[in-house]
Amino acid sequence: MKERVSFENDYNTGCHPRILEALSATNDERTTGYGLDPYCDEARGLIRDMCGAPHADVHFLVGGTQVNLVIAAGALKPWQGVISAETGHINVHESGAIEATGHKVLAIPSKDGLLSADAIDQFCRLYADDPTAEHVVQPGMIYISQTTELGTVYCLDDLQAIRQAADRWGLTLFVDGARLASALAIRKTAIDLPALARLADVFSIGGTKCGALFGEAVVIAKESLKQDFRSLMKQRGGLLAKGRLLGLQFRELFRDHLYEEIGRHENEMAAVLASRFREHGFEFYAPTVSNQLFVLMSESEEAMFREKAVFERINIQPDGRRTCRFVTSYATKMAEIDTLFAL
Amino acid sequence: MKERVSFENDYNTGCHPRILEALSATNDERTTGYGLDPYCDEARGLIRDMCGAPHADVHFLVGGTQVNLVIAAGALKPWQGVISAETGHINVHESGAIEATGHKVLAIPSKDGLLSADAIDQFCRLYADDPTAEHVVQPGMIYISQTTELGTVYCLDDLQAIRQAADRWGLTLFVDGARLASALAIRKTAIDLPALARLADVFSIGGTKCGALFGEAVVIAKESLKQDFRSLMKQRGGLLAKGRLLGLQFRELFRDHLYEEIGRHENEMAAVLASRFREHGFEFYAPTVSNQLFVLMSESEEAMFREKAVFERINIQPDGRRTCRFVTSYATKMAEIDTLFAL
Amino acid sequence: MKERVSFENDYNTGCHPRILEALSATNDERTTGYGLDPYCDEARGLIRDMCGAPHADVHFLVGGTQVNLVIAAGALKPWQGVISAETGHINVHESGAIEATGHKVLAIPSKDGLLSADAIDQFCRLYADDPTAEHVVQPGMIYISQTTELGTVYCLDDLQAIRQAADRWGLTLFVDGARLASALAIRKTAIDLPALARLADVFSIGGTKCGALFGEAVVIAKESLKQDFRSLMKQRGGLLAKGRLLGLQFRELFRDHLYEEIGRHENEMAAVLASRFREHGFEFYAPTVSNQLFVLMSESEEAMFREKAVFERINIQPDGRRTCRFVTSYATKMAEIDTLFAL
Amino acid sequence: MKERVSFENDYNTGCHPRILEALSATNDERTTGYGLDPYCDEARGLIRDMCGAPHADVHFLVGGTQVNLVIAAGALKPWQGVISAETGHINVHESGAIEATGHKVLAIPSKDGLLSADAIDQFCRLYADDPTAEHVVQPGMIYISQTTELGTVYCLDDLQAIRQAADRWGLTLFVDGARLASALAIRKTAIDLPALARLADVFSIGGTKCGALFGEAVVIAKESLKQDFRSLMKQRGGLLAKGRLLGLQFRELFRDHLYEEIGRHENEMAAVLASRFREHGFEFYAPTVSNQLFVLMSESEEAMFREKAVFERINIQPDGRRTCRFVTSYATKMAEIDTLFAL
Repeated sequence: MKERVSFENDYNTGCHPRILEALSATNDERTTGYGLDPYCDEARGLIRDMCGAPHADVHFLVGGTQVNLVIAAGALKPWQGVISAETGHINVHESGAIEATGHKVLAIPSKDGLLSADAIDQFCRLYADDPTAEHVVQPGMIYISQTTELGTVYCLDDLQAIRQAADRWGLTLFVDGARLASALAIRKTAIDLPALARLADVFSIGGTKCGALFGEAVVIAKESLKQDFRSLMKQRGGLLAKGRLLGLQFRELFRDHLYEEIGRHENEMAAVLASRFREHGFEFYAPTVSNQLFVLMSESEEAMFREKAVFERINIQPDGRRTCRFVTSYATKMAEIDTLFAL
Repeated sequence: MKERVSFENDYNTGCHPRILEALSATNDERTTGYGLDPYCDEARGLIRDMCGAPHADVHFLVGGTQVNLVIAAGALKPWQGVISAETGHINVHESGAIEATGHKVLAIPSKDGLLSADAIDQFCRLYADDPTAEHVVQPGMIYISQTTELGTVYCLDDLQAIRQAADRWGLTLFVDGARLASALAIRKTAIDLPALARLADVFSIGGTKCGALFGEAVVIAKESLKQDFRSLMKQRGGLLAKGRLLGLQFRELFRDHLYEEIGRHENEMAAVLASRFREHGFEFYAPTVSNQLFVLMSESEEAMFREKAVFERINIQPDGRRTCRFVTSYATKMAEIDTLFAL
Repeated sequence: MKERVSFENDYNTGCHPRILEALSATNDERTTGYGLDPYCDEARGLIRDMCGAPHADVHFLVGGTQVNLVIAAGALKPWQGVISAETGHINVHESGAIEATGHKVLAIPSKDGLLSADAIDQFCRLYADDPTAEHVVQPGMIYISQTTELGTVYCLDDLQAIRQAADRWGLTLFVDGARLASALAIRKTAIDLPALARLADVFSIGGTKCGALFGEAVVIAKESLKQDFRSLMKQRGGLLAKGRLLGLQFRELFRDHLYEEIGRHENEMAAVLASRFREHGFEFYAPTVSNQLFVLMSESEEAMFREKAVFERINIQPDGRRTCRFVTSYATKMAEIDTLFAL
Repeated sequence: MKERVSFENDYNTGCHPRILEALSATNDERTTGYGLDPYCDEARGLIRDMCGAPHADVHFLVGGTQVNLVIAAGALKPWQGVISAETGHINVHESGAIEATGHKVLAIPSKDGLLSADAIDQFCRLYADDPTAEHVVQPGMIYISQTTELGTVYCLDDLQAIRQAADRWGLTLFVDGARLASALAIRKTAIDLPALARLADVFSIGGTKCGALFGEAVVIAKESLKQDFRSLMKQRGGLLAKGRLLGLQFRELFRDHLYEEIGRHENEMAAVLASRFREHGFEFYAPTVSNQLFVLMSESEEAMFREKAVFERINIQPDGRRTCRFVTSYATKMAEIDTLFAL
């Protein structure tokens, strides 16, 4: 096990050295708790600046499920649900965290993990035209993630169309950015932080999967969501006592373009990895644009790769091929890729 | 409006005359509240007898959504969900009542509203084999209804197979009998009350849609569900102060075969109605076996029928035809059917 | 048991004869479900008229706990709680119905079951001044009941002061009128329906304990509470399929002053009962103004009365005396009181 | 601000140097996520050993509110509540986290933050004897903390008596050990880890306030609580992706007696601080045995100390004196105390 390289996920290491340094350098300082310290303030300022959103509220939470459940709890009326791609993280991999807040996930079929404005329109039109709508869960929010669970990305046109759909139907638009570093590094999407801050009502900026020890920043543009958000965080166990740890990390990520650098590195490593797989004749389950690759391989091929590397198997296709996920991170090294493909 | 006949649903009138009589005859009596009166005791005894289940617990609630949400709240661990046909009432027509108790509805595609043991097995096997199962909502209960939302029924073989699936995967089996009178009157299912009491962990006996003013009986076979069920009912607003009203109604329904008689009448009227539609060349969206008919008709045909009758439109088919629902009840008269088809 | 008279509660019989008549007379009519029928419309109109509140929303639910939990779910933000007297029904006798919606009951000591504006102010000031307020449950609503759990009543001055406190602290004011008939019949309170509609954001008009078979009307003045209230009712199991049963009953209660008449009768019987107890030297646990009396008696006195009557014991006082509750209803007869005090 | 010393709380710094070292030393290693790594396994083993509880389940969560809400969600039936001292953290300082899981906190008056077996017995007896118990929230768990919110501690006799009360009434016993390091260092309590593991059904071992960057270990002795606990953690946002960070910290805390050493240091510093206050004539709001001191001081005295130090004011006494909290941590230095009392 020890000798195998790991492409298991982007949270299999500690953190980027610069973050560790920042934590060490400030370890003895005394600050007040719960995110009311100068480091959090500084990080909030940096994020607002980067987003071109001086009036946005910025909060820091420890993990992604926390982010999703706190936002669902805050944004939805009791009788509302949240629209998500069937493959969406909240629909499949959070042990029912959204339902535990009392809300239904309204799962919509999607292609490559991407929700389309058309599919949203169709769903909402059915609801609106339903004479029994009072007895049906009302859509209240749209949840998308950038990048998606399948490593794909929305482009600016897609996001603008979804924003319009949200406006058309009176829905809050939430973008889960657990892997936002990788997404932002894909220039062709034309979605940068200011675009997100302008188009989404609320979005998260992932730290855990983007080089931090842990932590997600939440950027709230919508006024009604801002109210008492810290109390809601506290109630759901999402307010870290030593909140400055989060502030420190995000200050570091958003100084000197570290967050961009990490995203770029992840994607470069993934691109190399993808080309290697392609060279060996492998096909992919989903387009390879970000730091997650979904490689289709036979049982014996999977076994062969497992001797050299740790990775997840997502599912088995009807044709018997395995969908295996390879993920790169800030820490992925070219040597690891070489090891994987060394005879 | 006044002159139109109504096939809108089976809760569009008051109640069977015998029930009204029973309420009138006892109106001045003094009894204790919350279902602890002699009438509830008598009705509980009658139901236990009819079910051949002397150790079952029997409770009375006012409505079906109450029944479903209280049972979900009582039967499921916080991290569990309930398996239901995609068309199941809890999945589509209860405004998210199950989710409001914190549990996900695990919706499975079905044919004619019927969940199969195979589909349940397939779903549970996927869950059990999933290496990320800890992050996925765990199935904890199976919800089926007899009759289904589409008026179809399970036969004894089906139910036995589902029971076995429930045992195989450690799931509670709950049968929603909101329209059980109609279902029980279909002899070919071979499912009678003792079969239900033997195979289901918990099931309901519908009153509201079966001739009562209101009320559903819940029959609990499973020991672990019995504990403090009345406290749970109270907490969810399901414990009627004048509980005897429920006891009185169920005593009446289960004396002298009234419940059977009502089911039989509903089905006979529906059979006549179905044959009339068939004679006129109409097709059906689902098999016509119980008191709900789903007739496919063109826009102009729908408009024509609307001049004479009140009924619901369920959906519009891809070919443009409307699926229109016609429901019979204890009160449906042959003359109403004649009116509908009178030129 | 049979021969004992009952002062156990005000829901120990069926309903006022006029209501039974109305149900009988309309039993065969066909109407649409879920409270969208003409009888509900008519009852809503009558209630709006009686309240002088043409813009109020009026809904009908089956029971009081349902009313309380639906309003809490609709009015409170996830991080808010509801202020109640320690003796309030929601705090002590609903099996945690409010907490099951996710909200804390903020219980405040009270005198004779009455919450004072001063006590509310003091509680809210403590909250507002608390530097850790973000970590404390925020008050969001005031719950009072008229009459209270101890049979006492608020006067117009009290209610106005509480309204001002609600405004001062930004709280929704909810008045639980489960026993409103009795309360309205106490003229000296100077609180009539228009006063309630003007001062409360939302209040209920009890049917169950005021002569109906069952049912509570909810009158909503506050705009933000009106939105999708029917969906919320449905989700919590509070939307009756045969909704017209509720409409019919409230139409009857609010035609020809039946509701007033019932309240007056209850209070007159209670006044007679109270004077008899007084004549025999009994003292009371709380002022005797409405249809609930809380009589203090020794163990042997309690035993003696139990031979003749059914009633509840509320608690045992430090001095050993029992607090026994005697309740009158629309159906209480002078002869029953005579029986109670017959040697 | 910069120059003031801080006694604000025990989470105002980073972490003990040894923990920082451990994080640095392992930063580049690849491990699997969600607490399934070797470091977590090792820490679990160490804790089981220290507790003499080879069959206990051990989990790691990030924060104390998470711990409390996850345990409440897992241990309580829907209709049950948790008994706590009125001053208990779950009752006053978690923004309603317990209620958000659907459960009532059953607050009982306490002396110095300590719940007594007698008070528990009295509360449960009232419940058991209440003829309306079905309508009352049923006690299901006892929550105590060691040390308490007021810095006081239970002794072995107290805990044994509470265990017996728990057994008498069928309650789960949960000990919140957010500040357990300080508590364990108080030898006279005679409560060590094996005693806790033997007497409590579940308890937590605090990291955040005991020298870690963050993290709480949960030790589960009771079988029924063990089932699917990780799914519940995930659902409530309490399963850290880089779970090894928690394992690493607890491995460090429980190697070479670091946890003990930290607790001892905290208490020694607090003892010095207390004696200095005493020398200056100050009295205390609660006994001074652990790392939290509650000093009573006048307005001017408070102002004077605020010039030199950061600390919290808890409340204002009826006599006008302020209750000010001074907390020591692993990082507190004698020099800081000297600074505080330097003229």
